[in-house]
Amino acid sequence: MPDYTPTREDRFSFGLWTVGWQGVDVFGGAARPPMDPAGAVHRLSDLGAYGITFHDDDVIPFGSSAAEKEAALKPLREALSATGLEVPMITTNLFSHAVFRDGGFTNNDRDVRRFALRKVLDNLDLAAELGARTFVCWGGREGAESGAAKDIKAALDRYKEAVDTMTQYIVDSGYDLRIAIEPKPNEPRGDILLPTVGHALAFITELDRPELVGLNPEVGHEEMAGLNYAHGLAQALWHGKLFHIDLNGQHGPRFDQDLRFGAGNARGAFWTVDIVENGGYDGPRHFDFKPPRTEDFDGVWASAAGCMRNYLILREKVRAFRADPEVKAALSAARVDELSQPTLTAGESLETLRAEKFDPNAAAKRGMAFEALDQLAIEHLYGVR
Amino acid sequence: MPDYTPTREDRFSFGLWTVGWQGVDVFGGAARPPMDPAGAVHRLSDLGAYGITFHDDDVIPFGSSAAEKEAALKPLREALSATGLEVPMITTNLFSHAVFRDGGFTNNDRDVRRFALRKVLDNLDLAAELGARTFVCWGGREGAESGAAKDIKAALDRYKEAVDTMTQYIVDSGYDLRIAIEPKPNEPRGDILLPTVGHALAFITELDRPELVGLNPEVGHEEMAGLNYAHGLAQALWHGKLFHIDLNGQHGPRFDQDLRFGAGNARGAFWTVDIVENGGYDGPRHFDFKPPRTEDFDGVWASAAGCMRNYLILREKVRAFRADPEVKAALSAARVDELSQPTLTAGESLETLRAEKFDPNAAAKRGMAFEALDQLAIEHLYGVR
Amino acid sequence: MPDYTPTREDRFSFGLWTVGWQGVDVFGGAARPPMDPAGAVHRLSDLGAYGITFHDDDVIPFGSSAAEKEAALKPLREALSATGLEVPMITTNLFSHAVFRDGGFTNNDRDVRRFALRKVLDNLDLAAELGARTFVCWGGREGAESGAAKDIKAALDRYKEAVDTMTQYIVDSGYDLRIAIEPKPNEPRGDILLPTVGHALAFITELDRPELVGLNPEVGHEEMAGLNYAHGLAQALWHGKLFHIDLNGQHGPRFDQDLRFGAGNARGAFWTVDIVENGGYDGPRHFDFKPPRTEDFDGVWASAAGCMRNYLILREKVRAFRADPEVKAALSAARVDELSQPTLTAGESLETLRAEKFDPNAAAKRGMAFEALDQLAIEHLYGVR
Amino acid sequence: MPDYTPTREDRFSFGLWTVGWQGVDVFGGAARPPMDPAGAVHRLSDLGAYGITFHDDDVIPFGSSAAEKEAALKPLREALSATGLEVPMITTNLFSHAVFRDGGFTNNDRDVRRFALRKVLDNLDLAAELGARTFVCWGGREGAESGAAKDIKAALDRYKEAVDTMTQYIVDSGYDLRIAIEPKPNEPRGDILLPTVGHALAFITELDRPELVGLNPEVGHEEMAGLNYAHGLAQALWHGKLFHIDLNGQHGPRFDQDLRFGAGNARGAFWTVDIVENGGYDGPRHFDFKPPRTEDFDGVWASAAGCMRNYLILREKVRAFRADPEVKAALSAARVDELSQPTLTAGESLETLRAEKFDPNAAAKRGMAFEALDQLAIEHLYGVR
Repeated sequence: MPDYTPTREDRFSFGLWTVGWQGVDVFGGAARPPMDPAGAVHRLSDLGAYGITFHDDDVIPFGSSAAEKEAALKPLREALSATGLEVPMITTNLFSHAVFRDGGFTNNDRDVRRFALRKVLDNLDLAAELGARTFVCWGGREGAESGAAKDIKAALDRYKEAVDTMTQYIVDSGYDLRIAIEPKPNEPRGDILLPTVGHALAFITELDRPELVGLNPEVGHEEMAGLNYAHGLAQALWHGKLFHIDLNGQHGPRFDQDLRFGAGNARGAFWTVDIVENGGYDGPRHFDFKPPRTEDFDGVWASAAGCMRNYLILREKVRAFRADPEVKAALSAARVDELSQPTLTAGESLETLRAEKFDPNAAAKRGMAFEALDQLAIEHLYGVR
Repeated sequence: MPDYTPTREDRFSFGLWTVGWQGVDVFGGAARPPMDPAGAVHRLSDLGAYGITFHDDDVIPFGSSAAEKEAALKPLREALSATGLEVPMITTNLFSHAVFRDGGFTNNDRDVRRFALRKVLDNLDLAAELGARTFVCWGGREGAESGAAKDIKAALDRYKEAVDTMTQYIVDSGYDLRIAIEPKPNEPRGDILLPTVGHALAFITELDRPELVGLNPEVGHEEMAGLNYAHGLAQALWHGKLFHIDLNGQHGPRFDQDLRFGAGNARGAFWTVDIVENGGYDGPRHFDFKPPRTEDFDGVWASAAGCMRNYLILREKVRAFRADPEVKAALSAARVDELSQPTLTAGESLETLRAEKFDPNAAAKRGMAFEALDQLAIEHLYGVR
Repeated sequence: MPDYTPTREDRFSFGLWTVGWQGVDVFGGAARPPMDPAGAVHRLSDLGAYGITFHDDDVIPFGSSAAEKEAALKPLREALSATGLEVPMITTNLFSHAVFRDGGFTNNDRDVRRFALRKVLDNLDLAAELGARTFVCWGGREGAESGAAKDIKAALDRYKEAVDTMTQYIVDSGYDLRIAIEPKPNEPRGDILLPTVGHALAFITELDRPELVGLNPEVGHEEMAGLNYAHGLAQALWHGKLFHIDLNGQHGPRFDQDLRFGAGNARGAFWTVDIVENGGYDGPRHFDFKPPRTEDFDGVWASAAGCMRNYLILREKVRAFRADPEVKAALSAARVDELSQPTLTAGESLETLRAEKFDPNAAAKRGMAFEALDQLAIEHLYGVR
Repeated sequence: MPDYTPTREDRFSFGLWTVGWQGVDVFGGAARPPMDPAGAVHRLSDLGAYGITFHDDDVIPFGSSAAEKEAALKPLREALSATGLEVPMITTNLFSHAVFRDGGFTNNDRDVRRFALRKVLDNLDLAAELGARTFVCWGGREGAESGAAKDIKAALDRYKEAVDTMTQYIVDSGYDLRIAIEPKPNEPRGDILLPTVGHALAFITELDRPELVGLNPEVGHEEMAGLNYAHGLAQALWHGKLFHIDLNGQHGPRFDQDLRFGAGNARGAFWTVDIVENGGYDGPRHFDFKPPRTEDFDGVWASAAGCMRNYLILREKVRAFRADPEVKAALSAARVDELSQPTLTAGESLETLRAEKFDPNAAAKRGMAFEALDQLAIEHLYGVR
């Protein structure tokens, strides 16, 4: 059996809010004590991660003075220095404090929007200072429960204004940072703006500096809409916009489960790793999960270790699948490569195309041989090839 | 009680495939005889529609010769002429015949892709000839049931190639036609390409002639993904891409129900009519529904009439809602208009912004007054104001 | 326009945890201060409610001594006495404290199960003392996120043991109390035991005293599984098991939205009120909703008032629908009453049945006239008849 | 690598309608020619199945005379005789012909209900004659799209009348047959009666001869409601009602996909096989899937073979999982067995229980160790242990 021990070359990163989640939900209070961020860095380092990420509020209590901020950051910096862990991404919390009850960038209240911008600008400074290259924006409270409460076109104007302000600031400050928008369809708002990978991709094209903005798609968020996450990643890559990823697990349309990676839709996880490894993505393999509320800290670390281990298991499977001669033959039988050939021959006129003879009834008899191909994939997933 | 009798000024249109659906589904055969297209035109005209739409195969049997095609079209033309009904939109069927088992534009089989292009080019000619201004592309079989069977990035390349070929042909032919892509997440394929309004909007930005391509969002298709249809329309309008709409009814993530408009998510229908009427859309109010298989032809026409009547009922409600002084006050209390104010003052520097004093804990006490506003909306929906 | 002001005869009741919800969710902290239970009683009385309900922990802080419990209850008793409000139902909280991380009655940890039983027995005493007639059991943490963690058959054994213990205690104590199980498919657990009305109905038949146990179905819980709530109520009534109801709003499979009644699936709400009013239910009209986190206390009370007002609006519509002569004719045309006739004539032999002549192809031509009927219903819903 | 070749001892059975599905759906016509039932029997025998099942109409064209029926059955009987395949189950088609547009047993039209009963009685005779022990009732058209069209309580009365008539006929005829009800939430009807395992279990308790009626749960049907299929099987077993199973694959709430077994929710399939193998079920392992419309007959057989192969792969995994000493230790750490201990000690009084000392805050610190346990399960699923 191969060794599935993660190394820094695997580039696994974790949000501090993942292992640090205390288990508070709508129906119950904390089930675990607060986790010390510096301690989490050391433990994640020991487990094989190469980086950690965080929301400002995960480390710096909301409302901290400059001195309190530095005091909060000091042990984190020391832990990063001691372990060599990176901070490849930082993200901002515009959703926990009650002031963001109607969102940050698209809050109906202009004062709150201005406050949100200030908070984000501070956080961009911190991101740059810590060497992060990606700044994730999850607009979890940007949305509505009811139709009249939010003018969606105005909201998109304000969303654009905020992101344009951020990219201008990044350019003006000379920061080496890119923004990654994280879509989500609902929860905690009834309907969230930019609900899927597609909506966010479209939004980006209207920005002042689209080249600085891409996506951070999360497995569970797309699957909550019944969408195929690997397909979403592929389209994001097609647009050149897969800047970052959030890996976890989900069981279809329901509440946001944030299961550990590999422990939700297993078949989907296989194709996720396939596109991540083979589709041109070169960022961190970032986990955004929640160790279930049933667990104590031992369970938290078992869950975190499982995320990485499952990724490595699936990576090996995907490699074996792509190297398998029977798979290659089955791909050929399924004419998968034929889709990469242009439909028109170079320089071909439509007259030529239209004059072509073709018997659709005869062609309709040809099967696609997809089931045989997929059975090979499933057997690789199950580890029996 | 106002009169809800539709007139041609209301610009209601119906697909011939809607009233003509025979009730064939996965579990049962035809429950109604075929409907004569010309007869359908006359009946829809009598009911108050202003236009009809169709797939090529709805009128012209698949595989018809040129003469057969003309023979099939003749009674339709006569009915259109006799009634004065328009054909504002035409769409193409790349999904019913078994040759399209793996789709048309993105079929792995290049021969089929070429055949699909030929079929579409012929149909563009017909659309132009009949005076249609919109050509809808629903890629219902463009997708996959399994991960290896479809190279998504290659598929998007081929999709782009097909649409680029179509727009070039439109321009070269001098046709006054625009293409409207109709997204759908799944069914009949396991996962369909361009699954939501967002994905299609993003795709369009990569085309050669994006100005000629927009969207035809369908109520049920977005709601099958749990998405808010009115929000989707609003984002499409924000991008200037709402070219056409498909109105019907659905009850959330499940099979494609195609209920008559107004008979699914009633609250969503209210907000749909609000954005259609007030958001800048000026195309037909097109119904793409299926009279349930329980119905005979009387039921079919009751269902069709209900679509229009419900639209008019909701239109009146929406107008009353927007005109209601209590609603205006409630919108103001909910600070809805404040979202149209830029977050930054014109010319304001970020220094000024960042220097602003703000007490988030004090601001967090301010409620948004959305429930009172929404209750007014619900009461308009229920007709008790 | 009729008056939709609630009176005590309407028998509206509210959980104290509904208006008292502070807005804590997975993504954010409290957005409203704690609400004084006694104050809530007075306010709900003023709004027109006839009763309040609560979980033990809503009023009596977890872990209270006997003296602390009495101190906590005293102002509530006084408020009840002053207002004349009833406590028709009490329910128990086996889900908020971390000790219940794996549930109460079906926790793998026997010590916790025993503690849960103790807590429930104390709460039964309180329910009886306060004159409650219904004791609701929502097993929100009885479930699992993963397959091996829970032996479902053993869990059902323990669930049965707990409910049997409760009913024995009720009988032994001479309490005039019945238990109502509240099903839910998921959230906060990945999969919850007794996930739907059906599963709970079946479970009850295996209990020692099934006559003392029925259901408390919640709108949103059934709709989270894509099920028709009114159908669920009808089946519960068919079994004689509709002991209590939880009214609120939801938009299909997603997180538990707990919207105010009438503000989710409006069409479903109409049929809900129809079956509640006309199907033989005679318990309280109880609201279990959450005023959205966007709201301050004014919004909370607007939301609570909206629940009752929407019920009364819909009740009037349902009465009008059932009294409408056109509806009666349409019901007859749809042969709805014919379903109440036994399929076999009394005393008829199967020989007679089997000898009957019938032409299915001729009969297949008969439409059901459901669309015309449903259009009448929708127009009553929309208030245009 | 073990051999995953099915044998008759594995008791795999297939519906003739599965491999024989021609690919007709709402959006397209037949993609495969009709399959000869006798040929299917031979091929399934060669692949390793032990039995086949069918709806009357799968073999005997609707409306056949007695002579036509015998003519249709003759080659099937010969194939069964030649191969030794059994017919462990027969089911009835009360959904395909247009006469059943509103269902069979619960059609508003009494004439149709009577016809449905006649058809079922004939089919019971056939089932007995062919040696089937299980008679499946899937009421796919028993339901409604709209609220007024169906009186649900009357419908349940008629459903009961029909099943009671069937069981009386079975008893009177001396048949060794049991009925298995197959629940489904929706599709092709908007909402189907007895939508889940739970609803059907409850319904059975009201029948005249509940001992003769059980369930035939289908993977996809439960997962369309977001329910955990393995949990549903466990509850059905707890009630002693798991008479038959329908294995296939699905990706959550959406249209009924009927994927081959093992190719949908892989994690769910593992727990499905675990409960089927270890929970006391002793009936056939029956596949009710649809080879995708993309496939020709080669693909159909690849898909059918995949169903069996995946079951055997998963069966081996489940055995390995249950035999793994680390799993046993993890189950113990997760206190899974402790749930089989009664909560109360035999003969214990509630006084003793209530006097017990317990510190919930101390106990709340204990984690459940479920993540470590589930990671072992996932690794067995992935074949890396």
